[in-house]
Amino acid sequence: MLSKSQVSLLKSLQQKKFRREHSLFVVEGLKSVSEFMTSSYAIQTIYHTPAASSKLYQLSKKINFQEITATELEKISSLTTPQEVLAVIRIPEWPALDNKQLLKKFTLVLDGVQDPGNMGTIIRTADWFGIQHIICSQDTVDVYNPKVVQATMGSLARINVHYADLTKLLPQLNLPLLGAMLDGENIYATDLGNEGLIVMGNEGNGLRADIQQLINKKITIPRIGQAESLNVAIATALFCSEISRKRLQ
Amino acid sequence: MLSKSQVSLLKSLQQKKFRREHSLFVVEGLKSVSEFMTSSYAIQTIYHTPAASSKLYQLSKKINFQEITATELEKISSLTTPQEVLAVIRIPEWPALDNKQLLKKFTLVLDGVQDPGNMGTIIRTADWFGIQHIICSQDTVDVYNPKVVQATMGSLARINVHYADLTKLLPQLNLPLLGAMLDGENIYATDLGNEGLIVMGNEGNGLRADIQQLINKKITIPRIGQAESLNVAIATALFCSEISRKRLQ
Repeated sequence: MLSKSQVSLLKSLQQKKFRREHSLFVVEGLKSVSEFMTSSYAIQTIYHTPAASSKLYQLSKKINFQEITATELEKISSLTTPQEVLAVIRIPEWPALDNKQLLKKFTLVLDGVQDPGNMGTIIRTADWFGIQHIICSQDTVDVYNPKVVQATMGSLARINVHYADLTKLLPQLNLPLLGAMLDGENIYATDLGNEGLIVMGNEGNGLRADIQQLINKKITIPRIGQAESLNVAIATALFCSEISRKRLQ
Repeated sequence: MLSKSQVSLLKSLQQKKFRREHSLFVVEGLKSVSEFMTSSYAIQTIYHTPAASSKLYQLSKKINFQEITATELEKISSLTTPQEVLAVIRIPEWPALDNKQLLKKFTLVLDGVQDPGNMGTIIRTADWFGIQHIICSQDTVDVYNPKVVQATMGSLARINVHYADLTKLLPQLNLPLLGAMLDGENIYATDLGNEGLIVMGNEGNGLRADIQQLINKKITIPRIGQAESLNVAIATALFCSEISRKRLQ
């Protein structure tokens, strides 16, 4: 049985302000929750309907489970169709990033990505291509937003997402900065090297001027047809594919 | 001034049943609407607020414009934040596809894609890479769904989207059938040729068994990390990128 104050706390976690205040976020659905159960994330409580009990208890006995009714789940879920299981998880504090952690690999940098679906899809794609870290400007959509969490399909459990003042952090990292920009070199005809930061801009405005100034190499995805631009998650995926080609061929 | 019956007709176009009954669909926003104004689509009426008048009249004087108030626009818009302009457009009837129209190029085939955002992003990406036709199974999300139209960002004006019984049409087209499947050849190490149909499956289930049987070449996007799958719009974009590389290099 859920108390009124539990319902109100859980609902409040749909807003960034309260997620940060309590250092907690919510993950829904058996598949996504199970990804976090086998990760290093600290799970506070897993709320689940009776239907999910046996599936969950197989996965772990050490977690704080609370069985609730389907009606109670509807009260605390952000989904139109709640999915039997909802976990409350502690927001991790990643150690500050330095150059050593990012050598010999590519890392994504997001400068003001706003759409939760795009953000979630970027995390899922990054996970597919084995990227470990994503660095976001402070005004990038919150990664613990329920819509972002849902769109990552569990991949959030494996990707470290850092928020930082990009104009300060990027120069400190001392790595090649590749920027996705319209007037850059052809991505299909450029050697992207084997390490660096790939900087993707906001959906409508691209990279901010002060970030553009830091870029060492502008890169463009050339166009055959007439669309004015590519969706940012699509463009990010094409960059992930190009940096991975040599390893995958 | 909008009549009650106009409002009710326009709202009804948010449902597939009424779009098909009236052969009409809705496009919102100045940028997207202007893409259709310069296309071969038949525009029935453009509703716009006074703020948009001068911008619109520059584009064309031959179209049936109706100035409405911002409050009226809210009544007929499907957007949370309506964008000054809403056009009602006739649903086109494309001539039946045959082999000749599709020779020496790649065409996308969607087998049961359900999410409007994915569908819209696929159309926008196809437009970027110069693809002209997309063939959809009958149960693929309706391309004139307001959320799909919005996500195409105007690219729908340039891409012909056909609905068909895939098991009948695909063999008739007599072209190489490449299927996006988990157990296929490595996309980065395979010659994809210079023409064919690229078949993408449903978000959760992939290609249906009867479609799988028609595939000549199974193709896989190999994975470095641990995500269980890629979003279908992302996977489609990676296919579009690979078939375009030679031309763009």
